[in-house]
Amino acid sequence: MRRQPRSEVTRRKLVDATIDLINEIGYPAAGLADIVERAGLTKGALYYHFDSKEALATVIIEEGMVLFHNIFQSAPDSKHRAFESLIVGTFTTADLFATNGTVRAGVKLLRTFAGFNPTAKLSYLSFVEQITGDIKRAAAEGDLRQDTDPTDLANTVVAWTLGAELLSSSVSDGHDFRDRLARQWRVLMPAIAAEESLDAYQAFVVTASATQSNLVEAPRTDPHRELR
Amino acid sequence: MRRQPRSEVTRRKLVDATIDLINEIGYPAAGLADIVERAGLTKGALYYHFDSKEALATVIIEEGMVLFHNIFQSAPDSKHRAFESLIVGTFTTADLFATNGTVRAGVKLLRTFAGFNPTAKLSYLSFVEQITGDIKRAAAEGDLRQDTDPTDLANTVVAWTLGAELLSSSVSDGHDFRDRLARQWRVLMPAIAAEESLDAYQAFVVTASATQSNLVEAPRTDPHRELR
Repeated sequence: MRRQPRSEVTRRKLVDATIDLINEIGYPAAGLADIVERAGLTKGALYYHFDSKEALATVIIEEGMVLFHNIFQSAPDSKHRAFESLIVGTFTTADLFATNGTVRAGVKLLRTFAGFNPTAKLSYLSFVEQITGDIKRAAAEGDLRQDTDPTDLANTVVAWTLGAELLSSSVSDGHDFRDRLARQWRVLMPAIAAEESLDAYQAFVVTASATQSNLVEAPRTDPHRELR
Repeated sequence: MRRQPRSEVTRRKLVDATIDLINEIGYPAAGLADIVERAGLTKGALYYHFDSKEALATVIIEEGMVLFHNIFQSAPDSKHRAFESLIVGTFTTADLFATNGTVRAGVKLLRTFAGFNPTAKLSYLSFVEQITGDIKRAAAEGDLRQDTDPTDLANTVVAWTLGAELLSSSVSDGHDFRDRLARQWRVLMPAIAAEESLDAYQAFVVTASATQSNLVEAPRTDPHRELR
C-alpha cells in the first residue's frame, strides 16, 4: 500500500530534522522532543511514523547506505582498472560524506550502534563485501602483491577507512577525512600494489586525492525509497 | 575535599551499572531509569552525582583511558625494541578490551561521541600521540622503512586499530578483534618494516598474536581516581 503524499511529507520532515540534529549535536543529545520541535510537528506525528528514536536511526542508516551504493554502482568502470576504481571509490566516499548530511549522519549512527542494530551490522558486512570484490578483480588484473590474502586486505582497507573517518570526525569535525585517506594510501601502498606497479599507483593516489568527485547533492525531499 | 565512603559506593554502583548496560544493550538504549534500576538506587541518587547521562559517559571514558595508559606505562620496555613494543601494545589493547568491561564500554562511548565530547576528542589525540612516540623510537632504531612519515604512519596505525575494533564489535561482538589485528599487521607489515627486518617482524607478529597478555582484571570497586 502506498503512503499518502502528505503523510510522506511529514515523515520526511521528521527524518530530515533527525539528520540535522545528529550532525549538529550528535545522536545521544538529540532527544525526541528536539526532533519534533525542529520538524515543527507533534510527538503524536512522530509516533504515528516511528516506534522509537532507534527506528528513525535505522531509516537514516538505510538511506545513507542506498546513497553510498548508488554512487559506487553508477560508476561501473569498464575503462578503469579495478584498483584505480577502489582508490577513487575511497575518495568519492569522503566527498559523499562531506557533501551529504544523510550519509554523514548514517556513518555516525553506524558507529554508535555497531553490533547493537542488525541494519548497522549488515551495512558493515556489505561494505566489506563490496571492497572484497574490487580487490579480487584488482588481484586478477595483476596489480596487487601476490602474497596478500584478498579478504584480509579488504577487511584492512575497510578498517582503515572507518578509522580515518572516526579520527577525522573526532579531531577536525570531518574536514580532514580526504587528506587522511590520501596519507594512509601513501603510507600503505607498498604493502598493497605489486612491486612493478608501485610507483604508478603512488602517482595515481596523488592525482586521485587532488581530484574532487563530481557529486551532485541529492535533493533532500527525494526519499530514495524505490531503491531500497 | 574527599567524598564520604558511602557516597563513593553509591557513585561507583551507578558507574558500574552504566558500564554493564552499555556492554549489554548499547549506550543509546540504556536509559537513566534502566541505570537506576540496575544499580538498585533512585533517580535522586543519580542526580546527586551526575548531571546527565553524558556526565556518566564521560567518567567511563576517563576511567577506560586511565586503565589503557596504566597498561602501557607499566611495561616500560628497556629490553624490547620500540617496534616490538608497539606490536605487542596493540594485542594488549585487544586483551584489555576483551577482559575489562570499563575499557569495552569506554571504547564504545568514544565512537558514539567522537567530536561531540571534549574528553573523547582528547582520548583519540592522546592515543595518536602515544603511538607517534613509539613509531619515532622505532624509526630511530632503524626498524622502519625510511620513506615513511612517522606522524602519517602513527595516524594510520591508530585508524586501522580503531576500524578493526569497530568491525569486530559489529560482526562478532568483539570476539575476533585480536585475530583482525594479527591479519592487519601481516597484510601491512611490508609497508612498515625496513626491508632487512621484514621477515623477522612478520615472524614476531605470529608469535605476539599467539601470546595472551598477562592482564589481571582490575577490581570493579577500585575507583582509580587518584590516577586521573
